[in-house]
Amino acid sequence: MCEASAYIIRDGQEELLLADVDIIEPEGDQLRLVSIFGEQKVVRAAIHSLNLINHKVLLVEKT
Amino acid sequence: MCEASAYIIRDGQEELLLADVDIIEPEGDQLRLVSIFGEQKVVRAAIHSLNLINHKVLLVEKT
Repeated sequence: MCEASAYIIRDGQEELLLADVDIIEPEGDQLRLVSIFGEQKVVRAAIHSLNLINHKVLLVEKT
Repeated sequence: MCEASAYIIRDGQEELLLADVDIIEPEGDQLRLVSIFGEQKVVRAAIHSLNLINHKVLLVEKT
């Protein structure tokens, strides 16, 4: 499977936001994350970087 | 393997920018894409959305 873990940078620290992420897409001015299990999170953030071989997506909070 | 194909939206159309992408990261105000084969592209774009199960990353040009 090719899901990834999504981390968000808060106060300079990477914090796990959602594991096993399939979809990340804009929802208004926020981002909606959907895991392969159907779990969803909506955050005020942007996608900062990807490292797919390491299954890692990094988000950054929007201020 | 968990690489993805990166498409960029230009004039409303999705255009394949780079296949087998591993890493996407900011480089100044642009994005650097690196494939699993070491091929690199730098574009003035932002990451719009991901669909990892479908191995698809969508970028949008920055104006």
